[in-house]
Amino acid sequence: MKLTELFALPDPAFGQAMTDLLETFHHSDDSQAPYQRDQFTHQLDQSRMPATGIAMDEYLARLATLVPGASHLTSPRYMGHMTAPLPAFTAELSRLVVMLNQNPMKMESSRLLSFLEREVLAKLHRLIYRADDLFYDAQMHAKDAALGVMTSGGTIANVTALWLARNRACGDNLFALYEQGYRGAVILGSRLMHYSFDKGMDLLGLGARSVWRLPTDDQNRLDMAALEQALAQCKEQKLKVLALVGVAGSTDFGSIDPLPELADIAEREQIHFHVDAAWGGPTLFSPRYQNLLAGIERADTVTLDGHKQLLVPLGTGMLLCRQPDLMMAVKREAPYAIRASSFDQGRFTLEGTRPANALYLDAAFQLFGQQGYAELIEANYDRARLMASLIDQDPAFELMSAPVMNLLSYRCIPPHLQGKVLDEAANEQVNAFNVALQKAQRAEGHSFVSRTQRAVGRYGPQPLTLLRAVLLNPLIEERHIRDLLADQQRLGAEIARQLFG
Amino acid sequence: MKLTELFALPDPAFGQAMTDLLETFHHSDDSQAPYQRDQFTHQLDQSRMPATGIAMDEYLARLATLVPGASHLTSPRYMGHMTAPLPAFTAELSRLVVMLNQNPMKMESSRLLSFLEREVLAKLHRLIYRADDLFYDAQMHAKDAALGVMTSGGTIANVTALWLARNRACGDNLFALYEQGYRGAVILGSRLMHYSFDKGMDLLGLGARSVWRLPTDDQNRLDMAALEQALAQCKEQKLKVLALVGVAGSTDFGSIDPLPELADIAEREQIHFHVDAAWGGPTLFSPRYQNLLAGIERADTVTLDGHKQLLVPLGTGMLLCRQPDLMMAVKREAPYAIRASSFDQGRFTLEGTRPANALYLDAAFQLFGQQGYAELIEANYDRARLMASLIDQDPAFELMSAPVMNLLSYRCIPPHLQGKVLDEAANEQVNAFNVALQKAQRAEGHSFVSRTQRAVGRYGPQPLTLLRAVLLNPLIEERHIRDLLADQQRLGAEIARQLFG
Repeated sequence: MKLTELFALPDPAFGQAMTDLLETFHHSDDSQAPYQRDQFTHQLDQSRMPATGIAMDEYLARLATLVPGASHLTSPRYMGHMTAPLPAFTAELSRLVVMLNQNPMKMESSRLLSFLEREVLAKLHRLIYRADDLFYDAQMHAKDAALGVMTSGGTIANVTALWLARNRACGDNLFALYEQGYRGAVILGSRLMHYSFDKGMDLLGLGARSVWRLPTDDQNRLDMAALEQALAQCKEQKLKVLALVGVAGSTDFGSIDPLPELADIAEREQIHFHVDAAWGGPTLFSPRYQNLLAGIERADTVTLDGHKQLLVPLGTGMLLCRQPDLMMAVKREAPYAIRASSFDQGRFTLEGTRPANALYLDAAFQLFGQQGYAELIEANYDRARLMASLIDQDPAFELMSAPVMNLLSYRCIPPHLQGKVLDEAANEQVNAFNVALQKAQRAEGHSFVSRTQRAVGRYGPQPLTLLRAVLLNPLIEERHIRDLLADQQRLGAEIARQLFG
Repeated sequence: MKLTELFALPDPAFGQAMTDLLETFHHSDDSQAPYQRDQFTHQLDQSRMPATGIAMDEYLARLATLVPGASHLTSPRYMGHMTAPLPAFTAELSRLVVMLNQNPMKMESSRLLSFLEREVLAKLHRLIYRADDLFYDAQMHAKDAALGVMTSGGTIANVTALWLARNRACGDNLFALYEQGYRGAVILGSRLMHYSFDKGMDLLGLGARSVWRLPTDDQNRLDMAALEQALAQCKEQKLKVLALVGVAGSTDFGSIDPLPELADIAEREQIHFHVDAAWGGPTLFSPRYQNLLAGIERADTVTLDGHKQLLVPLGTGMLLCRQPDLMMAVKREAPYAIRASSFDQGRFTLEGTRPANALYLDAAFQLFGQQGYAELIEANYDRARLMASLIDQDPAFELMSAPVMNLLSYRCIPPHLQGKVLDEAANEQVNAFNVALQKAQRAEGHSFVSRTQRAVGRYGPQPLTLLRAVLLNPLIEERHIRDLLADQQRLGAEIARQLFG
């Protein structure tokens, strides 16, 4: 085959092979190959590129050996990470997104889709900030304005928020702070802030030590007394608070910081108020649950993450800005690509060239509508409550946080400790038991939850290993939840014998 | 339709509609809607999300109005930006990548594909650094090692390189530099360095003023005398040089800095040596042209960009590291996701969750092989030479840089100035003429080159508007090049009448 034919001719056999691979994968409830690192490394140990291209058939054979090794994130028995199963139309839409290959950094490389991105961002801005029609008519396509930016994910959105906050305070010159009489700069938030904030402050030259992780209350929400104390300490030590961070859906518990109180303090102290709603933001679609996020509309910036509850593919983060001129604080130009006088979105994104993922969001917004999202979210939140009650009723489990959204943390208790008061030594046993149990369940590949390590109020500062269930898949039914817990009981009995005799 | 059906059932009508949209798009040589901003903004001015989902048919009708507004990046008459036309199998493969939805941040969310990523990076590492089998056997799947990282694009790769260089010099604490006796920190490179370096130094708290853009020689390569002078100045002013940046394929001219000389200096001065080969890196595939990049194997870090000459979709950047332990300088952990003792790639990527785009690279490596890439690259470089000679022969054009790779900068000369010596005033006329010409050609949508603004040696420091052709599409034939130049002559005659009477 001539090389140029690879560019010109779609290959129906290749398309059919993808369909077959995907069908087999989806129709299997389990992961199809055991979780064996050694086997995976041996399967993929060629550091040399093939000298000449292999035939399409050969490559399809290779793919057929790769796919069974993938994590089965789309099974309704897989409740472990925040990766959504995607609506089926996404597969077909991806062909369009990929082959149009539009680059919204620059209008010349994405024309209409540059404006689609602005429309999508306006819709999300309205969801959060509820400004009026006049505001959106004036701002959504204005030149030196951005209701938000698309990013490659929540991490870059959070980093961008910190970048904005710092540039508002002192531009790109940290020493300007010293000239203002400060002796350093920090951000304040709860101990459950995402680790992207550490990366961000590290990048910004302020170091991860500038991330002050404050205590939480018994509902895993930022403790307001601790915050006031930290603020006083910052004043005393002449530290500039660059941003106050509210978490709207912590990754471990789904807990939500007291946003209205945080907004009051940010206003009083004139601090940039950022809300990380990567996980929880879409709760705003639900009439039943949207009050959980009251106060978010007072945030200067809000992070959302498309691949979580917005149900679009990985790689689609967003930072929304209350004030449309805020992004001008980080505006950049480049002679060949980004003209200052242009409408190019690349003027203020951390990334340069990036895909037109706004099209996935557009499809989901149109095909689900607000109500569709609300139904999906409410069903997930209900399922989390169901799972919590199943866990709570059974002495083999201990629920570690009441469900706020659709994240649950719990742990399994080995038979000999069920019903007992757990002291530090017992908790160490429970930790070891849960690590082994999670690994065994993962290796079996039949069902899955993830694990984390966190202190929990009632046991003091001791780090506990927790299991973490994420109820995100609309295809999860009660039986899948019961099966997953039954798997854990079965595997747990075996592991308890091994560990405790 | 029940909402959950959207997740369960592929919709053949939707798939067929995508096929039809793509076929119409590809079979048209022109962009299908004129470049009219006002029309685009009116088409996309809804800031309100639909209350309920619309029917699939309605959404397909919407898509059918959106696609004609896209930029026609895949036409062989579109030679303006660095976005590659993609091989046809990419469309089908995207369905698999998107629906598997693997997240290589964490092995639990991407199992086998985490190792595929490591294999892909090893192949690129070998292409650049040519280490021996023993090295790759030991390092490609080692625990506290990374031959490189995948990023969302070249910008994040360059930013990551600067982050590494800074953390090597002083960790995340800029003040450690002061304790070492320095009074500031800079990076050194040519005036043609990509603007991502400004973003990076801004982010890092050192400001865009810490990016020293040094003069170039008459071949648009970093001037070595200027570099030595800058180094002496840094010593005198007690400025730490965090990195020396070599450009391997400048975005305006495709020029390549003298990499061996830069490597010598970096070694002598013990400076982190970074090569931005986002554009030029794949030249290494070509036996005929690989010598252009001699010296790159001595770089500490190298940026590559998949969506350019590697021919994979947008969103696939890479940073390669000569020493596999270098990335440990920015290692991070998170209790729920990234365990320090794990193999998770997320330990040292700036991004968190991100798509498994390594699969696109794997497919291209296998299906093209080294030789396939070499053929495609050599054909493109030859086409650039052909286009350069057509331009050089015609008094209506002025070639501004001899082709090194497959990027050309040139400009059109209005009839009344052809054959004349161009003074400053004449050059201003030529600038205005080329801006108007490029806009007219873009609006017509029949063929396309981009434009940039740069000083060029023989005209002194005056900024000149240049046209910029990118020969990347394997389907470009001589007739497309001749047609594009003919379009410019035709449009130019008209614009000269308007501008100069």
